[in-house]
Amino acid sequence: MIQYTGKYLKDSRDDLFYKVSKKMSSSRFQHVLRVEEMALKLARIYHEDLEKTSIAALVHDYAKERPDHDFICQMTKKNYSPELLKYHNQIWHGTVGADFVSEELGINDEDILNAVRTHTTGAAQMSKLMQIIYVADFIEEGRKFPGVEEARRRSFESLEKGVAFKTKHTLEYLLSRQALIYPQTIETYNAWVAK
Amino acid sequence: MIQYTGKYLKDSRDDLFYKVSKKMSSSRFQHVLRVEEMALKLARIYHEDLEKTSIAALVHDYAKERPDHDFICQMTKKNYSPELLKYHNQIWHGTVGADFVSEELGINDEDILNAVRTHTTGAAQMSKLMQIIYVADFIEEGRKFPGVEEARRRSFESLEKGVAFKTKHTLEYLLSRQALIYPQTIETYNAWVAK
Repeated sequence: MIQYTGKYLKDSRDDLFYKVSKKMSSSRFQHVLRVEEMALKLARIYHEDLEKTSIAALVHDYAKERPDHDFICQMTKKNYSPELLKYHNQIWHGTVGADFVSEELGINDEDILNAVRTHTTGAAQMSKLMQIIYVADFIEEGRKFPGVEEARRRSFESLEKGVAFKTKHTLEYLLSRQALIYPQTIETYNAWVAK
Repeated sequence: MIQYTGKYLKDSRDDLFYKVSKKMSSSRFQHVLRVEEMALKLARIYHEDLEKTSIAALVHDYAKERPDHDFICQMTKKNYSPELLKYHNQIWHGTVGADFVSEELGINDEDILNAVRTHTTGAAQMSKLMQIIYVADFIEEGRKFPGVEEARRRSFESLEKGVAFKTKHTLEYLLSRQALIYPQTIETYNAWVAK
């Protein structure tokens, strides 16, 4: 178990665990714990700070179950691009959700907040922590989709391969569903997948 | 055969035919003539001006065989976004190629130039002529790819269905090749394909 030093937030891991658990269903919270486990595994392999990784993993879906209204208020208050209003919780819970992580949990480390912001869409530029959370969310041990074994294998070969695999897979999935594609997802694709 | 009235350019169709043929291989020129044939077929069904359609079809690939250098000079001279420099002839021959159509062939009708600009990427907003050229380029009788029959069938049901089919198919193709995706292609997809 990771001990928190107070460097990134005042709470202990138990406090954060408790606060996050209160914000979501128990099945989602189990997913969050599996993301933490996978993220720590990747952090050990790729030499990332374990405390920062644990915190980012625990809070990555903090806002996932909030009503749309909360996001719309926040986007309006903070003058987010009106373009973002066209999207939904799937995009907002990271992009805008990071605001709630900061305001309500008192986490102000930009690397952690960026990992929350980009854990669904990725970004053209991603720090090691951002890559770890992006990948861990995709390959945590509860994921069952076809291809997940290959995704895990590639992610253990290199983080870059994990990022590329998730990005391509996500786009294929969105296309097959004829779902909206957030432009930043294409920036991620062009930076990490395209030759 | 369409007779030109002088409304969109001074040249007769024969003059334009000759000038375009000089700018490309004979196999590409045959493609251009098949695009004109298909575009006129669509224009008759969907009630678009036949003269404008013929001109836009004949010039859509006018710049396709120009050296990269020509496009790079033009982008620099005209202060195109530096982002566009990351792409290649596949994107430039329409987006930037329309400038050569205007400057060298004396065609200044914005609808025709927009049809040239967007014939590869599409756009969120497309006029009827833009849709016709975008679709005709994809389903002209020389095209043999798997799915082309369905693409033709849908395009004859409605232009919108043709635009959506080409857009989705193009994205699937680019993804399968891990090729760069031009952001405007995603705008087209979000406007015409996504639910």
